[in-house]
Amino acid sequence: MIRSNQGKSFQDYMSGNVCYGCGIKNKKGLQIKSFWVGQKSHCYWSPQPHFEGWRNIMNGGIIATIIDCHCMGTAMAYAYKKENRELSSSPHYRYATANLNISYLKPTPNDKIFLECQVNQYTDKKVIMSCIVYSGKIKTVESEVVAVRVFDSSKSQKKNIFKD
Amino acid sequence: MIRSNQGKSFQDYMSGNVCYGCGIKNKKGLQIKSFWVGQKSHCYWSPQPHFEGWRNIMNGGIIATIIDCHCMGTAMAYAYKKENRELSSSPHYRYATANLNISYLKPTPNDKIFLECQVNQYTDKKVIMSCIVYSGKIKTVESEVVAVRVFDSSKSQKKNIFKD
Repeated sequence: MIRSNQGKSFQDYMSGNVCYGCGIKNKKGLQIKSFWVGQKSHCYWSPQPHFEGWRNIMNGGIIATIIDCHCMGTAMAYAYKKENRELSSSPHYRYATANLNISYLKPTPNDKIFLECQVNQYTDKKVIMSCIVYSGKIKTVESEVVAVRVFDSSKSQKKNIFKD
Repeated sequence: MIRSNQGKSFQDYMSGNVCYGCGIKNKKGLQIKSFWVGQKSHCYWSPQPHFEGWRNIMNGGIIATIIDCHCMGTAMAYAYKKENRELSSSPHYRYATANLNISYLKPTPNDKIFLECQVNQYTDKKVIMSCIVYSGKIKTVESEVVAVRVFDSSKSQKKNIFKD
């Protein structure tokens, strides 16, 4: 499997992002990084020891956090791709989670995980994705995630709540 | 609303629990506490500032973590209650999450939250619950959670993976 963490990630383009899961501004956060590999988005992440749920097994809520943020980044990146423009371009879009539906199939070791997300449905307002978590080659978690666009810099004059 | 954090919580009876969300042994964890109030279980929890997803808005993955652990504790406590015995009694049961289905209805301020869980279906193997998150009196998140019994000290000779 090709490691995809070369170059800038989706999150690197989310300036001012304070999110615990994916914010480059959150020094105590998980700071996940997501990238396109073909039509799917990939994320590799390594936990700290205290993120276990059971001894040496990753906590399910932390897995949910990684899924959530990887999918929100993917929804954003997909929207830019649909508009055939770079992540550095305007307008800026940001997404928030409407629904997480996560099935824990097997225990996930509290070690490096790999997430693969694909967009299944897309409108200007809503993005529906599936996201799978792997430990090595073993699929341990599957999910469906619904994202809604909550910020569009071309339309809103409100303060960008994503920023400081 | 009556505060229910008097006396010992469900989690106080889960000796050796290293879970990031609810383990009394995880010093870097969230250490949630759950209690019965009538037929429902309650949990109050206050975040640290870095658990935001957007500025002053709680991260959705952290909310998922609290829901998950509050429900696993509730599943355990409900099983003991069904068997008309104390949480301090044997056999010890422990539950793991099979499915989390979480709908984020409104932004949840990154401040004190209150969770209320109820058991909707119960068998010896599986417990299905609904769990609502409130910020003050405002319902911000609703969820359905499926727990499965993964440890029963009367049946299993395996090492209790819940312990050190």
